[in-house]
Amino acid sequence: MSEFTRMWADLAPVGRVAATGGYRRYAWSREDHDLREWFAGECRARGLDLMTDRVGNQWAWWGDPDAARAQGRPGVVTGSHLDSVPDGGAFDGPLGVVSALAAVDELRRRGHEPDRPIGVVNFVDEEGARFGVACAGSRLLTGVLDPDRARALTDDEGRTMASAMALAGHDPNGIGRDDEVLARIGTFIELHVEQGRHLIDLDDAPVGVGTDIWPHGRWRIDLPGEANHAGTTRLEDRLDAMLGVAAVTIAARRAAEERSCVATIGKVQITPNGVNAIPSHAAAWLDVRGTDTDAVHATVAAVTEVADEFGGQIREESWTPTTLFDPGLVDRIATTLGGAPLLGTGAGHDAGILATHGISTAMLFVRNPTGISHSPAEFAEEADCLTGVGALADVLQSLTGAGPA
Amino acid sequence: MSEFTRMWADLAPVGRVAATGGYRRYAWSREDHDLREWFAGECRARGLDLMTDRVGNQWAWWGDPDAARAQGRPGVVTGSHLDSVPDGGAFDGPLGVVSALAAVDELRRRGHEPDRPIGVVNFVDEEGARFGVACAGSRLLTGVLDPDRARALTDDEGRTMASAMALAGHDPNGIGRDDEVLARIGTFIELHVEQGRHLIDLDDAPVGVGTDIWPHGRWRIDLPGEANHAGTTRLEDRLDAMLGVAAVTIAARRAAEERSCVATIGKVQITPNGVNAIPSHAAAWLDVRGTDTDAVHATVAAVTEVADEFGGQIREESWTPTTLFDPGLVDRIATTLGGAPLLGTGAGHDAGILATHGISTAMLFVRNPTGISHSPAEFAEEADCLTGVGALADVLQSLTGAGPA
Repeated sequence: MSEFTRMWADLAPVGRVAATGGYRRYAWSREDHDLREWFAGECRARGLDLMTDRVGNQWAWWGDPDAARAQGRPGVVTGSHLDSVPDGGAFDGPLGVVSALAAVDELRRRGHEPDRPIGVVNFVDEEGARFGVACAGSRLLTGVLDPDRARALTDDEGRTMASAMALAGHDPNGIGRDDEVLARIGTFIELHVEQGRHLIDLDDAPVGVGTDIWPHGRWRIDLPGEANHAGTTRLEDRLDAMLGVAAVTIAARRAAEERSCVATIGKVQITPNGVNAIPSHAAAWLDVRGTDTDAVHATVAAVTEVADEFGGQIREESWTPTTLFDPGLVDRIATTLGGAPLLGTGAGHDAGILATHGISTAMLFVRNPTGISHSPAEFAEEADCLTGVGALADVLQSLTGAGPA
Repeated sequence: MSEFTRMWADLAPVGRVAATGGYRRYAWSREDHDLREWFAGECRARGLDLMTDRVGNQWAWWGDPDAARAQGRPGVVTGSHLDSVPDGGAFDGPLGVVSALAAVDELRRRGHEPDRPIGVVNFVDEEGARFGVACAGSRLLTGVLDPDRARALTDDEGRTMASAMALAGHDPNGIGRDDEVLARIGTFIELHVEQGRHLIDLDDAPVGVGTDIWPHGRWRIDLPGEANHAGTTRLEDRLDAMLGVAAVTIAARRAAEERSCVATIGKVQITPNGVNAIPSHAAAWLDVRGTDTDAVHATVAAVTEVADEFGGQIREESWTPTTLFDPGLVDRIATTLGGAPLLGTGAGHDAGILATHGISTAMLFVRNPTGISHSPAEFAEEADCLTGVGALADVLQSLTGAGPA
């Protein structure tokens, strides 16, 4: 059994929900704690130096990143995250972390001696499943997310991120931008399962190279209602928040279709959510992305118009403009991999946050035969995963000394 | 302070949610336990004989119901329930229980000696807020609800009614139809806050007499979806359960409008309910009522057609045909109360279940200045409540001996 296979088997049961076959691995939860402990153990077993930054991201170094940086040789970092969306798949995040560790093993097997440090990272809270802000770990690290705002974010049970961190043994007072940690990263490569159908439609393309992340954002729409009895209140006397939810859901789909974007109402909270009570309030979350920034904004504007008609309020929760990965790095990786295909993506990643921060960044995508992600159906063949590990090792070797043999 | 006012103040804090000002008093919960203990204490303080039936309904008797029944003088029962919908008002249920106890006090103050027993009842689980079946206490008692089905009903946390009962100290194995308890009830009068705007539109009508309950039912609609990433899945590749929810919500409203019914989607469960995950499943609950049975069925049929288009399945969870209260009793009460106005209602009640079982039944409604119910805005003026207590006492006195002086 390869180390890759053994690590994959280690992670398989953590946070798995028997009823759905999916994973619930939320930031600062018990499951997250177990995953972080597992990561620390794997790094220790490889003799890597583990550091946890102020935000809670875990960094494991092969070589001394501070000494190398002082000599003008900042590190090459790879990795991803271990948290999941609700009932998510096994690959989104963990594939990048496990492949990073397996690539370190491969480089050592090759006898490679890196000329600059190689780092493996586990970013905390990439999905934002619990507190609503995606890439919270990298956003806090780079100062994009304000620490006070982060600490005050609440989960569905009303617990703040600060309280959840403290319960998990991490000091919430220390979170915030950390230039010392950032200065160690010369280059960042994130390997990820593909979340669409680009590579499977090509001929023999187990691995592709990411070029950019589409502009994307999240909006919260609050729709008013008036609580009343479902059996005794005349239709004309009602203010039913659920009618607003229905209208913005249909408007989002229609507006995205017309503008070649994608738009989703994936999360809804109805109050009081009783069978015989007219909804007195509803919150609906809108996610819009597309290749064209103006089209994304126009889609949101069209939904806003409909929300207005129902007395609703719309508030931007996050916005990320088009993120271009480093074109020189993308070219070099594609060449190293013998002309691997290039692709953009509609999904946000920590790699996008670091790229925006001015770090030379790129991504590798491993083919997903279902094209499905954020679902138990998310998948990658083991052979493709191992090809991904080899490709990542080739790239790291090329970036830290001699190219692949 | 009157006993009514004191009892009302006793109940005010139990299960009150500070954030909404509403009540969460669900069957077999901690709050329900406290309310049941309170009821038992009030009955003990009045020297009433308390009996809890197999189902968990609490009966308190002034006089011996079994002895009287053997002599052909079955009891006259009044009361209601103490549980609530999510974030419900203070009056729906408790007003009937507190008024029943206060009416007993009033009859004793008048020196009334009833010629048959008077009973006060607290029905368990009237709202069905936790397990989805309204009037579970009276439905089980009369055998309308199958005990096996009831035991297997689950709440949102997946706990069965059987398990919730057992945790609350009630034996779930004993639930089911109880003819001995039913035989004690010759007449049932339920006093209730009005849940609409009939009485407030009349001149000086603090109390009305209920004539019938509209036909009404609940249906569960399951809508399929395919979990996938909201950012990377093309619109044409999606099966989004939320679009089905939107369609049935709009269809329900439109179909009800066209047929002069009321229809509500008040409860929705989205899976996985993540901001960046396409909903892989949704359940929506449909409530439809109206004065005309055919119109109600036609409304449900119209919604079913739309659910079909989205691959959905619709299942009836409960159905109650038109329930007529005993016309002779209604006349007698209206006369006793000096020509009180008559009104029908779209809300289900335990009184309706008993009426269907062949027990002579009627209701009293107390004016609600907001017309709103199942909401913290539900209200009745204290003067109207005390008028209601007086009216109930008059009715009980008339039914158990001499009419009011």
